[in-house]
Amino acid sequence: MSIYTRRRAKLFDWMRRENVALAIFEDVEGRRDPAIRWLSGHPGDALMALTVDRHSMLIPWDMHLAIFHADAEVVIPYDEFERSSCNAIRGVADYFHTPFGFRIEIPPQTPYPLFLRYVETLSDYDVICHEEGSIHAELAALRSIKDATEIDLYRRLSSITNELIELLENMVRERVITTELDAALFIEAQCRKYGCEGTGFETLVAGPTRSFGIHAFPASTAGAFATQGLSILDFGVKYQGYTSDVTLTFACPPLSRSQKRLLTLTEKAYNLALGMVGNNVPTLSIASEVDRFFTRATKFMPHGLGHGIGLEAHEAPAIRNRADNKWVLKPGMIFTLEPGLYDPSHGGCRLENDLLLTETGVEILTNSRIIYL
Amino acid sequence: MSIYTRRRAKLFDWMRRENVALAIFEDVEGRRDPAIRWLSGHPGDALMALTVDRHSMLIPWDMHLAIFHADAEVVIPYDEFERSSCNAIRGVADYFHTPFGFRIEIPPQTPYPLFLRYVETLSDYDVICHEEGSIHAELAALRSIKDATEIDLYRRLSSITNELIELLENMVRERVITTELDAALFIEAQCRKYGCEGTGFETLVAGPTRSFGIHAFPASTAGAFATQGLSILDFGVKYQGYTSDVTLTFACPPLSRSQKRLLTLTEKAYNLALGMVGNNVPTLSIASEVDRFFTRATKFMPHGLGHGIGLEAHEAPAIRNRADNKWVLKPGMIFTLEPGLYDPSHGGCRLENDLLLTETGVEILTNSRIIYL
Repeated sequence: MSIYTRRRAKLFDWMRRENVALAIFEDVEGRRDPAIRWLSGHPGDALMALTVDRHSMLIPWDMHLAIFHADAEVVIPYDEFERSSCNAIRGVADYFHTPFGFRIEIPPQTPYPLFLRYVETLSDYDVICHEEGSIHAELAALRSIKDATEIDLYRRLSSITNELIELLENMVRERVITTELDAALFIEAQCRKYGCEGTGFETLVAGPTRSFGIHAFPASTAGAFATQGLSILDFGVKYQGYTSDVTLTFACPPLSRSQKRLLTLTEKAYNLALGMVGNNVPTLSIASEVDRFFTRATKFMPHGLGHGIGLEAHEAPAIRNRADNKWVLKPGMIFTLEPGLYDPSHGGCRLENDLLLTETGVEILTNSRIIYL
Repeated sequence: MSIYTRRRAKLFDWMRRENVALAIFEDVEGRRDPAIRWLSGHPGDALMALTVDRHSMLIPWDMHLAIFHADAEVVIPYDEFERSSCNAIRGVADYFHTPFGFRIEIPPQTPYPLFLRYVETLSDYDVICHEEGSIHAELAALRSIKDATEIDLYRRLSSITNELIELLENMVRERVITTELDAALFIEAQCRKYGCEGTGFETLVAGPTRSFGIHAFPASTAGAFATQGLSILDFGVKYQGYTSDVTLTFACPPLSRSQKRLLTLTEKAYNLALGMVGNNVPTLSIASEVDRFFTRATKFMPHGLGHGIGLEAHEAPAIRNRADNKWVLKPGMIFTLEPGLYDPSHGGCRLENDLLLTETGVEILTNSRIIYL
């Protein structure tokens, strides 16, 4: 039984329990969803359908790619449905003889105008599109707990990430890397030498004059990196679809009192968060504790504390201080903690590592840190 | 009057005509929309609101970034709305005293479950979410006709793209570039030397064994490039937010009869399409003519013929053979033509250039071609 068959089996069971006859997943430009890669191995641009009587169909844009990558019972090219998702879903319901009146779940990302077209096309069915309690939420929850294969993969991926961190530190210290672009292009090239598909997201490299931005814009420039002040390097590499996500801060003397304080507070916040990580801990409690810590120091962190990683750079569990965050840490979760502080006059700093929660404790997968030059 | 003020003025006029009191634009992870950059200069992660009485508000995630980039009447950080788009839109309506019962337009990309929350939060308003006839469609139409500033920018961008094409051809001929990764990393590094922000999308480099894929996966590998057979190189570079998009095919002898036929048919299709480009021509007629041409040759092109380019790599006008395509070519439009054929046993080829339609004819901005080695 392939890993994809096992994963689909879990959703088939869920569909029986929840009385959903047909479930649709979609990965298209503008609405990316690696659920299809998780369910079938097919890397993207496709629709996927699961039925309660345990059938699966993949509808890829590129049939040639599907032949090489896709594990699904039936594969029919999107062209056969005139490249229309309405036609395709209707076609799937007809193909599998889905009984009229039964529930068809469509992705919660479905835009409202498209939802209306689906409802019209599928007027003889009960079309369901919701977030909480959806099969898509169930799939996100399943994906948030990594299986043995995924954990092995993250060990390899983390060791690649750590080798890159060491190389980057050395190259910065030896002044081989002196610009933001030097760092970005080095990661781009080097990660592939280790067998990575590429970077997991656009590498963010911000020298002292730009590190005040949460998300540097542009992502990297020809400007100086790791010169006097605070520089941020946020990167991840992608290995067999899965991404790491770490942030280094390079602190180059002389540092002002304000800069030292930003660094100390960020490290303290990181350790505070790390100390709270454990089985069954609600992530809201960790994130709100860190926010309170910063508030007491009259500082403010303008982003969430962390997030799950996997086939997406940001996935479940959320680790943020928002009332609607109901995530609880469980063994098998792989996630980041990334406290940071940003100041237009003094620059920014962020410290981010990838963690794995196990039955017995927390394992820090990556060696990111504040590097004092 | 800034370019942003002028652009917003066009939409204010539209709102008066269409009786829309408040319009919302959104650029967030999972729902990217460069409309906000086009309207304000702010590069991303924000909400933007326009009112019929000609006010504008930007709600950025990162206030520091907005201070450097944003042109808007009022800028209020997203944090003030507890990082909730529901709260933010409610807050905007309150701030501008939008009269109850009036129309508020939200983006047509809004997922159905979020749409329901908006309707609940804004229950005293008429919440509109549609595609055809929306302010978002109007903005896409405005963006499809480039203004003088944008056309100047495309001349610079095209000349950078063309320099890269020349360098790539030479480096391939001189065997400096021998792998897919060589080509991808060269573009990544070189484009920035010309002042680009980076690539416009992930560079696709596929040697002879992988060129059968429309969208190579992974995007580039350490495998051989431009060796015997057909290799595809699809790239674009981003300059001040705008992207080019070209595809080169490298044909390396000895070529089989089938490979020669793929190349000849693709070139003929490209010239056929180019000959039909003109003011007021429906793009559907060009795309369907090319599809008919391939059908007569018992071939099939598994993707659209072309697309507009600008702040997005794919934007209006659509140039594809689908009944719902109503786009008509107009002076000021900048778009690609990219016919291609793909065969798992013989490889693939695609030829893509960027074109500008002017009052007097068509200008081919880029020098992409099939390169016979």
